[in-house]
Amino acid sequence: MPHLEQTVKSTPIYDGKIIRVRTDDVQLENGNAAKREVISHPGGVCVVAVNSRDEVLLVRQFRYPFGKELIEIPAGKLEYGEDPSACGRRELEEETGYTAGTYRYLGPMYPTPAYDEEVIHLYYAAQLQPTRQKLDEDEFLDVLQMPFQQAVQMVLDQQIADGKTQLALLKADALRRAGKL
Amino acid sequence: MPHLEQTVKSTPIYDGKIIRVRTDDVQLENGNAAKREVISHPGGVCVVAVNSRDEVLLVRQFRYPFGKELIEIPAGKLEYGEDPSACGRRELEEETGYTAGTYRYLGPMYPTPAYDEEVIHLYYAAQLQPTRQKLDEDEFLDVLQMPFQQAVQMVLDQQIADGKTQLALLKADALRRAGKL
Repeated sequence: MPHLEQTVKSTPIYDGKIIRVRTDDVQLENGNAAKREVISHPGGVCVVAVNSRDEVLLVRQFRYPFGKELIEIPAGKLEYGEDPSACGRRELEEETGYTAGTYRYLGPMYPTPAYDEEVIHLYYAAQLQPTRQKLDEDEFLDVLQMPFQQAVQMVLDQQIADGKTQLALLKADALRRAGKL
Repeated sequence: MPHLEQTVKSTPIYDGKIIRVRTDDVQLENGNAAKREVISHPGGVCVVAVNSRDEVLLVRQFRYPFGKELIEIPAGKLEYGEDPSACGRRELEEETGYTAGTYRYLGPMYPTPAYDEEVIHLYYAAQLQPTRQKLDEDEFLDVLQMPFQQAVQMVLDQQIADGKTQLALLKADALRRAGKL
């Protein structure tokens, strides 16, 4: 029998700009009652984008919850109803000033499925063409170009903390070695 | 110059069992004001545990935010002040009924650094010894044993959604291939 929890009651807590929070009363499979705290989020995308010199585009930006800059691959939040692939292309161009000739889906990632509905969609992009970076007035980041294998090594050496960046780089590396990218 | 956002005011929103939520007013580097929604979480651990037949231990459990069962590596939430390595050993034994003779740190993962302070610590464990599974009364999960390479292939085939599980399996695989595990 699959495990199952049934919603008894749902109580909204907070309706923010990016996240919503609710607490649900649930019934467990043994009949007991429990509470579940749940974050809603529109989801996101991230892109491993590789240029003709096999360098990957990285962005360095301040991440407020950690009070410091992190190195990540280009990424962004989905607009509600937006196609994830279109969002990936938009964010890549806005953040780095490049469009990609080829685009491949590397799958979904649930970053924190115990309490957060967010899904991040991972992409691999190649055949880059320069256009123009289009940052929002209040968006600040630096774009880095780094040999792809050096970025993979940084992940293995624990020098990149961001989860989606670590996963997308290692997944792209494994798929490339298997001849599937 | 590094990018920086400075906290002007912090407003508590919700103080729950697992998460806390606050909204902060910040000043951006261009002097503009902005709001940041921030989740606090005690952090977690997860463990790639491999037995003498090179099978990895997986758990299948219901994840309420997605309304379905997910396949993950054993994992758990840190108690405040708990050593992550001790937490990994505890969760591995409680969820699967195994202790490990060797334990290696694979690094931290920030699952959603844009709005969540959570850090997940990744571990690799081997030389497993059976003890006894110790699930809480309200904890329901099945333990699976699967050849390590089959689990890695499931990640590449987009059949495992959980982020920490995908990352820890690919990281362990890459480090094993490099002779570092």
